[in-house]
Amino acid sequence: MSKIKSIQDWTYNNGLDFTYLSDPKTIQYLTGFYSDPVERVLALIVFPEKDPFMFAPALEVEAIKDTGFPYDVYGYLDHENPWQKIAAHVQQRVATPKSAGIEKESLTVARLENLHRELQDVTFETDVTDYLNTMRLIKTPDEIEKLKEAGKEADFAFEKGFAALKAGKSEKSVVAELEYALKQKGVMEMSFDTLVQAGAHAAEPHGATSDNLVKENEMVLFDLGTVHDGYISDATRTVAVGEISDKQKEIYDVCLEAQLAAMDFVKPGVTAEEVDKVARDIIEKAGYGKYFIHRLGHGMGMSEHEFPSIMEGNKMVLKPGMCFSIEPGIYVPGFAGVRIEDCVYVTEDGCEPFTHTPKEIKYL
Amino acid sequence: MSKIKSIQDWTYNNGLDFTYLSDPKTIQYLTGFYSDPVERVLALIVFPEKDPFMFAPALEVEAIKDTGFPYDVYGYLDHENPWQKIAAHVQQRVATPKSAGIEKESLTVARLENLHRELQDVTFETDVTDYLNTMRLIKTPDEIEKLKEAGKEADFAFEKGFAALKAGKSEKSVVAELEYALKQKGVMEMSFDTLVQAGAHAAEPHGATSDNLVKENEMVLFDLGTVHDGYISDATRTVAVGEISDKQKEIYDVCLEAQLAAMDFVKPGVTAEEVDKVARDIIEKAGYGKYFIHRLGHGMGMSEHEFPSIMEGNKMVLKPGMCFSIEPGIYVPGFAGVRIEDCVYVTEDGCEPFTHTPKEIKYL
Repeated sequence: MSKIKSIQDWTYNNGLDFTYLSDPKTIQYLTGFYSDPVERVLALIVFPEKDPFMFAPALEVEAIKDTGFPYDVYGYLDHENPWQKIAAHVQQRVATPKSAGIEKESLTVARLENLHRELQDVTFETDVTDYLNTMRLIKTPDEIEKLKEAGKEADFAFEKGFAALKAGKSEKSVVAELEYALKQKGVMEMSFDTLVQAGAHAAEPHGATSDNLVKENEMVLFDLGTVHDGYISDATRTVAVGEISDKQKEIYDVCLEAQLAAMDFVKPGVTAEEVDKVARDIIEKAGYGKYFIHRLGHGMGMSEHEFPSIMEGNKMVLKPGMCFSIEPGIYVPGFAGVRIEDCVYVTEDGCEPFTHTPKEIKYL
Repeated sequence: MSKIKSIQDWTYNNGLDFTYLSDPKTIQYLTGFYSDPVERVLALIVFPEKDPFMFAPALEVEAIKDTGFPYDVYGYLDHENPWQKIAAHVQQRVATPKSAGIEKESLTVARLENLHRELQDVTFETDVTDYLNTMRLIKTPDEIEKLKEAGKEADFAFEKGFAALKAGKSEKSVVAELEYALKQKGVMEMSFDTLVQAGAHAAEPHGATSDNLVKENEMVLFDLGTVHDGYISDATRTVAVGEISDKQKEIYDVCLEAQLAAMDFVKPGVTAEEVDKVARDIIEKAGYGKYFIHRLGHGMGMSEHEFPSIMEGNKMVLKPGMCFSIEPGIYVPGFAGVRIEDCVYVTEDGCEPFTHTPKEIKYL
């Protein structure tokens, strides 16, 4: 519970009476307990000098206690007003609270209004999000181990997906087979909807797996990831079914060169935007700059949307333990799309990927 | 686009200069386009008398236009400030906006602050959530058709799941097989993580599918649902593997009696809380009231968390076209758990379920 202690210290240092934590991923990070309560209310309330408590739907209370959470856990039933109960539990610890920290990037306006209605003298101005993001930015060795395990699952998924791929099959049936293989192995949760896109369909970087049939002589893009003990993998490979044209091969080669150059460049001391630029310059020099329409990468760990963002304008200096994707893409509308992605962790003198599926173009 | 017209009217009637819509499900409901932009910004901005526009990550713009959205679509790149761009587009239409509607139940505090920073003279006090919920509460015949299709997929999933179930298999492997069968049929998306829980594990109503092996002579709970063209299914069945004890059977029978009685009771004119009470009274009379620790049901349609909530305290009068789950559960810790659930739509004189898998106890 040393992570909770860190939030206690933050609450104390900011002169706050309590901090209201409500993002399910934050609660998982701080306590080890994960549940998405959707429209119900799950919160961890931390005080500078008193013990924290958790507040949850009644039907989650036992599960929270079972994780070994050593402090009070209070439940509420669906017909009860959770905000009144939270306010009462807070006031048991601090009779007249005046100020509180919140997670502004996940707390909704309606929920803040509900809290404020029951705790009218409290100002909720201070945002704990940056502090939490900074805590989560540098992964511990234990977290890196979990990310490596998730990476192995992604490599396994590629192996099964490539084995399932051939001309005449639908994109969806390839996903069905690779996910079945994962589930048979006990890997139940994908970190996002698995993407298999063939031919020109791969030029829609945010399209979805479709009923389209894979054709001979086209490239097929796989973007997938799993969740291992709360930590994710996320990787992309693009492979060739049959022969591909010189133009297709050129796009692939440029994308791969950019990906490898960016990985090679990463080390402590360089900035996030410099990494993006290394890949972008290569793609622009080859004449495909206008087809690379997203940032180079995103931070990852418990989700695929953490810091650091690897993009123009982000001057964050990389440090050992940071984890992010490196995923250049070239999307030529109506023709083909290529993306090659590994997530990496920064080491003392470079970086290491979590996925090891070969990146030289594979012909199936 | 008649649904957007309805939001235009609401904006006009509330004296607002624009309404900022940002929940991905709302945007899907109003425009037919769905994407979860996660930390990126996707919004539909509606004006009382001018054409609306959509604002999206650059890589989504073409996909939005392809859906036939007939108004302007503006994109932004990852390194650009989306809030400045949104403000500029708003000010092109209304030079000095003073007031705006927002979705308080999904808009985060941080995003509201970002909007406010760029549009400092605008008050964002009026919440469009209730109006949208009311629009979504009564399903159209077209929506009911999609929900029926999703229900058929759930019935198919039960069939495959029951076929895969036998003593010695893990809960997870049963899920793997039923989801594989769905994906081979082209059903790619579950509406939530499929739950298979055997024996005492089923007494944890919010537990997850585990590596536990199914044993002879225990009951196994299946809770599952799919997404069909944006609309969901959600159903639960509990079946017996081998023989079960009189006590297990009694719990099953009480739960089924409660479920059937509640379904039988539903018709236009009764209230949500009365439906809950019909089921709860039966379970309480049988002595299991303390083991039924959640509301009887939830509204559903595009998600499993819509109105009306079927619970104590909700005096909403049911009307034709409303859709919700009826799912009594009895969870005896350390012993067994039973839940039986159908989602239904209210008709002129009763209700019809979307799922038709038999509910008489099935012995495998």
